[in-house]
Amino acid sequence: MTQTIERETTTQGPQERVDQWLAEFEAALAARDVEAAAGLFAVDSYWRDLVSFTWNITTVEGRDGVADLLRAQLEQADPRGFATTEPPTEADGVTEAWIEFRTATGTAKGHLRLKDEGAWTLLTSLRELTGFEESQGTSRPQGVSHELSKGRTSWKEEREAEEADLGYGTQPYVVVIGGGQGGIALGARLRQLGVPTLVLDKHDRPGDQWRSRYKSLCLHDPVWYDHLPYLPFPANWPVFAPKDKVGDWLEMYTRVMEVPYWSRSTVRSATFDEAAGVWSVTVDRDGESVELRPTQLVFATGMSGKANVPTFEGQDVFVGEQQHSSQHPGPEAYAGKKVVVIGSNNSAFDICGALWENDADVTMVQRSSTHIVKSASLMEHGLGDLYSERALAAGVTTDKADMIFASLPYRIMHEFQIPAYEKMAEVDAEFYERLEAAGFDHDWGDDGSGLFMKYLRRGSGYYIDVGAAELVADGKVKLAHGQVARLTEHSVVLEDGTELEADLVVYATGYGSMNGWVADLIDQATADRVGKVWGLGSDTTKDPGPWEGEQRNMWKPTQVPQLWFHGGNLHQSRHYSLYLALQLKARYEEIPTPVYRLQEVHHLG
Amino acid sequence: MTQTIERETTTQGPQERVDQWLAEFEAALAARDVEAAAGLFAVDSYWRDLVSFTWNITTVEGRDGVADLLRAQLEQADPRGFATTEPPTEADGVTEAWIEFRTATGTAKGHLRLKDEGAWTLLTSLRELTGFEESQGTSRPQGVSHELSKGRTSWKEEREAEEADLGYGTQPYVVVIGGGQGGIALGARLRQLGVPTLVLDKHDRPGDQWRSRYKSLCLHDPVWYDHLPYLPFPANWPVFAPKDKVGDWLEMYTRVMEVPYWSRSTVRSATFDEAAGVWSVTVDRDGESVELRPTQLVFATGMSGKANVPTFEGQDVFVGEQQHSSQHPGPEAYAGKKVVVIGSNNSAFDICGALWENDADVTMVQRSSTHIVKSASLMEHGLGDLYSERALAAGVTTDKADMIFASLPYRIMHEFQIPAYEKMAEVDAEFYERLEAAGFDHDWGDDGSGLFMKYLRRGSGYYIDVGAAELVADGKVKLAHGQVARLTEHSVVLEDGTELEADLVVYATGYGSMNGWVADLIDQATADRVGKVWGLGSDTTKDPGPWEGEQRNMWKPTQVPQLWFHGGNLHQSRHYSLYLALQLKARYEEIPTPVYRLQEVHHLG
Repeated sequence: MTQTIERETTTQGPQERVDQWLAEFEAALAARDVEAAAGLFAVDSYWRDLVSFTWNITTVEGRDGVADLLRAQLEQADPRGFATTEPPTEADGVTEAWIEFRTATGTAKGHLRLKDEGAWTLLTSLRELTGFEESQGTSRPQGVSHELSKGRTSWKEEREAEEADLGYGTQPYVVVIGGGQGGIALGARLRQLGVPTLVLDKHDRPGDQWRSRYKSLCLHDPVWYDHLPYLPFPANWPVFAPKDKVGDWLEMYTRVMEVPYWSRSTVRSATFDEAAGVWSVTVDRDGESVELRPTQLVFATGMSGKANVPTFEGQDVFVGEQQHSSQHPGPEAYAGKKVVVIGSNNSAFDICGALWENDADVTMVQRSSTHIVKSASLMEHGLGDLYSERALAAGVTTDKADMIFASLPYRIMHEFQIPAYEKMAEVDAEFYERLEAAGFDHDWGDDGSGLFMKYLRRGSGYYIDVGAAELVADGKVKLAHGQVARLTEHSVVLEDGTELEADLVVYATGYGSMNGWVADLIDQATADRVGKVWGLGSDTTKDPGPWEGEQRNMWKPTQVPQLWFHGGNLHQSRHYSLYLALQLKARYEEIPTPVYRLQEVHHLG
Repeated sequence: MTQTIERETTTQGPQERVDQWLAEFEAALAARDVEAAAGLFAVDSYWRDLVSFTWNITTVEGRDGVADLLRAQLEQADPRGFATTEPPTEADGVTEAWIEFRTATGTAKGHLRLKDEGAWTLLTSLRELTGFEESQGTSRPQGVSHELSKGRTSWKEEREAEEADLGYGTQPYVVVIGGGQGGIALGARLRQLGVPTLVLDKHDRPGDQWRSRYKSLCLHDPVWYDHLPYLPFPANWPVFAPKDKVGDWLEMYTRVMEVPYWSRSTVRSATFDEAAGVWSVTVDRDGESVELRPTQLVFATGMSGKANVPTFEGQDVFVGEQQHSSQHPGPEAYAGKKVVVIGSNNSAFDICGALWENDADVTMVQRSSTHIVKSASLMEHGLGDLYSERALAAGVTTDKADMIFASLPYRIMHEFQIPAYEKMAEVDAEFYERLEAAGFDHDWGDDGSGLFMKYLRRGSGYYIDVGAAELVADGKVKLAHGQVARLTEHSVVLEDGTELEADLVVYATGYGSMNGWVADLIDQATADRVGKVWGLGSDTTKDPGPWEGEQRNMWKPTQVPQLWFHGGNLHQSRHYSLYLALQLKARYEEIPTPVYRLQEVHHLG
């Protein structure tokens, strides 16, 4: 029977209300009374679990969803010890609480929003595996044994021996393909958890993923949003760090966190050895061919995946240069040249801006509408409550901000986002008027929910303005519209017949799904089995339904056993690397990990 | 008139008592009533000022001392705005308070201990110069301009241009000789303060100061005591970091904090150009001779200064190897060899222990009594209240611990230290019995005040046992006693006639005063003008009187204008680099810096 427990809401304060809910929830769970537990949720309710109950990243909705999850997972999760970790608060009829609890395998934290009717949102997240806690603080390593012994080795000798052996004598349990912020953050967590791991990257040094980009690139997200695990940026770190400074930080971080990392190492192929249950990964390590045999394989090749290079008639006759935005070397060589940039998202704007600064004659070709927000406005109205000095002063630490963010169910997240973008439209009205007067086709997302929902749904369709939109608004960067029909020897011709002279054509045409890398390195069949990576199934532009409720294939089991995806921006690399690392650690320690509701594949890529 | 203000101690709580004292102190200072202000101190009282009133590091004692300081400095300091920063506490008749105030030039923090009679101890410290605050937190740099412009340069281009120009086109205001933790920490602070600085170091890379030491070396101080400014070690950092890991950290720190640093650069000479008021520093920069013209010259060459290599008859006929402990390459080459180590302090023990682990036949020659404490006991009873996870859990942050430590006047610090060492003697009684049974001559310092006072007074005479003392206690490392008479072809002969066969003799004979470097690089006359560096004038072994009250010549003006000394352990490199950096910044900005009571020179070195 699904029932609603009566509560004396009139006489209770927030602490009492939450304590009572938690006690009733725990009692129902202890009694394995799934219906009673589900009845503690509101009719419209959302329970998001990050690994703690489900060994998956999943959101269930409503009492039926809760009941379904519990029927499948309650026995193995065996949760108990629910308690608040600080006094709950109440506003607008919603009581909010930070909670902790234990499961059969670990300790967990969570966040609860209660309405009169019951739980409206519940976030539960696994934080540590019992018996496999990280060595930090009081349990940090000693670093030196205080008993001398014959033949004792030093830290340096041990590190050198380990490095020489890993991948040859000893096989890593996890291989991570790609050593940008995603691979590095995951590598650091797995190192802390004692999981033998090897991060592979094609560049010369960690951080070259950033250093090799165009010279004016800075992070578009602010410092408070960008910390890596364990070692936050210092208080003097710039709000928007220049790419070479980010590169230096990643290199330093890799070294001091002792992330096992092979630079100059390109994966040539990977196949799954069904009999042995391990992957066979062929790596070109600075010219040497090495065969790795990891149990788990993680793609951290950049959530943008593989470059989309469009095919146009005449590309073979065009006599100038053509390059995808990811290959653009920066503006230095193009002073006085005519450049046509196809596309109008982040990369297009950044490249157009830098080319204009270096005296190129630049035309941007807008093929479809784009969402633009001014960086300062996004910081103030979009992120400021969670990631800013203001948030820190209000006690919202990075970890807390990550958890608040994670506590908002994707199904209703757009509702929280829309007012922020309405505010930005208001404060920057004059800017948008000028931009549209210049002919720019601007949008706010299908439902007006703005940049972050576009990022989560499709990973494209926007630009955070750090100056280049002003160049378009006042005509310094020229604007053309429509699809490309063909290239000639010296120009780009649009479908409406407009002809744009060009010495250089930059295809700022975005990226495909990350499973493109799977097709390249494993095979197309495996890529198809995995399906599309990224997106929520929101049935909005470039994010077809059905509704998934979580990012497709990210940080959670896929349809291909022992194959995982990791990535995203620095925030996601930081926060979700925890849950992926715990899933990998559990498998390494052979802890049972029954997965609830393994996602289905609805789209190939 | 020196008077004691009546207080209604029976009815006041700690907050009221401190508020009243601060109000009366501020009123007296505002009225320039030196006697009234001095009367607020107890008869036996100590005011330690770190730069805020005195532009010096100095401690005055009693009401006369307070009055003398105020007569000289009050007008220029013009202090006001005294207030507590958190609720004061009371225990054993002493009320403790954390305070803040402003001076004519900056903001300051302090700590106050009140007894019924008045202030017992007062610590005042300058924290920031008004108008020259560091860019941190809310004032951190943006990192990118959100307005594009023609010819805009990138962070990398600016850094490269700055590096190419510094020391050639642009002269640094400060040159720091020595790029270990001291030079690096000071360099980082001066960088934050915008003072053009260049740190010079002879090694290949930052951190090689540690990497080049013997392989088993780990920090003897624990992690909580060792943080550098701005960027604390992460929570997984070992308690006692291995030397190569420290080296990696220093290298990365130097890079991410953008410390201007020349590696492979040896200072050949320095002379003061009286007419121009600048130093002329000749540097061998990786084979190129460069002339630098800084206004301020800082020696950060290691507080241990120059190696003391003793002279013995027969050193020229000895056929084996002889090396100072600082030159010892580690034990690898000495398996099966007979090694005699002269000395019985930290280096001697560490080297003996590592040699024994590598199967050398080791004899330690103890020339005078030595103080030994077990590392774990020192952590628990000596440092644990200030620098430990326990301290952090009790709200004692690193900065707070530094300030508490700084608030204990050196005159009475030994009284606080003695009980801790009595406790260690008790808990480790069995260990000391065994050690003495093995013939080891052990002491607890002249007045039983133990290790830290020995460090402050003489910088020698102790070993923090991380295992090697056990080898002496059980005879695995042999022990001999007395002074060396001479060396023969194959042995060391002691004054009592004992002859010790040797393939290698290690002189673990310590270091001289840092002004030995001044004699080498400038001249003996300047070294003599500076006088002895380090020590308190405690009139104990190797720390002759008269009483100085502060470390001689460290982090404060010396008798040689524009010449400074910086160094010490990581704690001192962190905390005192702040005050040295502020003194240098004030001079760079031409803020008046009238020095109170410039120290006199009583000893040459």
